[in-house]
Amino acid sequence: MHGSKVRVAADVLDANATIARANRADFDRAGVRVVNLMSAPGAGKTSLLERTLVACAGAPGEQGGSENGRSGRGNEKALTGVRVGVLEGDVQGSLDAERIAALHVPVTQLNTDPGFGGECHLDANMVRSALPAVALGEIDLLVIENVGNLVCPAEFRVGEDARAMVAAVTEGEDKPLKYPLMFRTCELVVINKLDLLSYLDFSLEVFLGNLDRVNPGVRHMLVSARSGEGVSAFGEWLAAVAAGAPA
Amino acid sequence: MHGSKVRVAADVLDANATIARANRADFDRAGVRVVNLMSAPGAGKTSLLERTLVACAGAPGEQGGSENGRSGRGNEKALTGVRVGVLEGDVQGSLDAERIAALHVPVTQLNTDPGFGGECHLDANMVRSALPAVALGEIDLLVIENVGNLVCPAEFRVGEDARAMVAAVTEGEDKPLKYPLMFRTCELVVINKLDLLSYLDFSLEVFLGNLDRVNPGVRHMLVSARSGEGVSAFGEWLAAVAAGAPA
Repeated sequence: MHGSKVRVAADVLDANATIARANRADFDRAGVRVVNLMSAPGAGKTSLLERTLVACAGAPGEQGGSENGRSGRGNEKALTGVRVGVLEGDVQGSLDAERIAALHVPVTQLNTDPGFGGECHLDANMVRSALPAVALGEIDLLVIENVGNLVCPAEFRVGEDARAMVAAVTEGEDKPLKYPLMFRTCELVVINKLDLLSYLDFSLEVFLGNLDRVNPGVRHMLVSARSGEGVSAFGEWLAAVAAGAPA
Repeated sequence: MHGSKVRVAADVLDANATIARANRADFDRAGVRVVNLMSAPGAGKTSLLERTLVACAGAPGEQGGSENGRSGRGNEKALTGVRVGVLEGDVQGSLDAERIAALHVPVTQLNTDPGFGGECHLDANMVRSALPAVALGEIDLLVIENVGNLVCPAEFRVGEDARAMVAAVTEGEDKPLKYPLMFRTCELVVINKLDLLSYLDFSLEVFLGNLDRVNPGVRHMLVSARSGEGVSAFGEWLAAVAAGAPA
């Protein structure tokens, strides 16, 4: 029985990999680079994106830089000239998509709820079904915000070039050991909610030691999406992915 | 294609419901009441259990009350005389089980990882497979700590009498709207990390309004597993479930 279950899982993942490759081919043809952004619920994916787009997007016209009345031209903003789009994955609702749309960034909502509890992750087929609504010709970088979950999103590639996850210090030091696949399959771990560090029983050293045990040498950065501390580094990482740098 | 997917999901949930009823019959025969405890990763399920067991368990002998050298007899401790056991669900590892075992509470570890990413929830069959390792004859109340996830655990009953979930204020006000099934299927919502409230942009009023939209009138309590504030109310709720009160 255990064997048959594993067999079914393998079939599902094989089928997913095939569709993920088709998505990837479409993205490549359109010249769009793709980031799969994952985290537990409430770790701050949307807040990080909001803050980063405001701080780092300096494209003439619709994006970020115009928010504060400055044009944002010049090299000081990491995402200057990079046209960013967002695909929002949620079980229900469009709260996050509305937050991103308020920044004048093109955003597409993808809900996973077929009527009961909904799917706990995006898979390649769900992303494929949303592609007609994503204006690939008008963007350089697509950030796919996955459903908040530290297990299944790690198992399903969707055609991304790079994977980033957000881990909040409020979640505790043990999470890399408890959800190893998620931490292992990411190219970047963004450690968020740094502004709360002094109010927690959380040792950054212990967390980084645990992270190193499951993904030795993985790139990480310390940020506070709330204060803006460190978000420029995330903007630079996104810009590097958009420019085709190996993640 | 969508239809066939929904059909498969219904079959899986039907099979799960059948096994959940078998579990429930076994629990009833043993006179054990069961709580399914759920949350997002890092919301504080284990910390809440630890703190509650220390504060409220006053059974003679192995549990809680002996920790600080007091016998804990008398009515002042809600779980006095209630023999509590814990079933720990995790993708990998036994970190939480070790924390609970340190309190001299009988604990069984149930890992969901079949080799790759692991299952993101407990289902009735997994719990059934663990029952031979749970000494049902020696406990009155079994707390099943589910895998940290706000989606799938809500879809799979495991034979429980009552469902409680932990929502941390650090996760944001919008979570009831984004993960409605989880908030809707619980008899109790424990709002944790109250000690951090003054450092967050979190309105308890907005959160409770959102909760009321998806589960009107559901019981909730405010706690800090870290400071111990409010955990006695959770102990009283567990004691009431153990006594057979309607959840």
